Amino acid sequence: MEERVEISILVDIYGELLTEKQKEIMALYFNEDLSLSEISEITNTSRQAIHDIIKRCHKLLVEYERKLCLLKKATEGRKLRDELAVLLNELRSLTNSENSNNIILKIEEKIDSYLWEV
Amino acid sequence: MEERVEISILVDIYGELLTEKQKEIMALYFNEDLSLSEISEITNTSRQAIHDIIKRCHKLLVEYERKLCLLKKATEGRKLRDELAVLLNELRSLTNSENSNNIILKIEEKIDSYLWEV
Repeated sequence: MEERVEISILVDIYGELLTEKQKEIMALYFNEDLSLSEISEITNTSRQAIHDIIKRCHKLLVEYERKLCLLKKATEGRKLRDELAVLLNELRSLTNSENSNNIILKIEEKIDSYLWEV
Repeated sequence: MEERVEISILVDIYGELLTEKQKEIMALYFNEDLSLSEISEITNTSRQAIHDIIKRCHKLLVEYERKLCLLKKATEGRKLRDELAVLLNELRSLTNSENSNNIILKIEEKIDSYLWEV
């Protein structure tokens, strides 16, 4: 995954562990793709301070992921969800019974309603 | 869930976010069920300091759960896993085809090999 995209996802996952201000700046930089100068203007904070916050929070987010692995977990969860969808479709193509099809549908609904993104 | 049990699970989930010493003391108190005096002796730390660390870390763990909801997520994951197991068993009891049974088995294996505990 491109590093910038990865950090933007880490901001979504671990943003709550940052302060409001840190979270806002990280989101503006990595999710909204604004420049340091633009963020400096919006948040009324010096360009140097923005730079330092981004550097420190980047390190923090990487550290959280090393400790809790929630991005890795979310990726594995989506992979499982997709693999199960394929297998359930195969199963449906082999099935004629209405009862079986209803159970397959129930299984699919349960899988779909689960929050796989951490 | 009894509060003591819940905190012991939070120590397992978020322990990595504590320092080594904090984690050790929380595990001794909530997972090993030792008294403040026993922990004080083992860790060569005053009883008052142990008391303060437990109080502060308890608050930290509750705060982490409020922000990341990993215990809630793990509980929902295990519930989904158990519900899927029941439905897949029902499906198997309705199925005679070997192909279908093989796919059901594959689905069960994928679900079993996934790490539902966060």
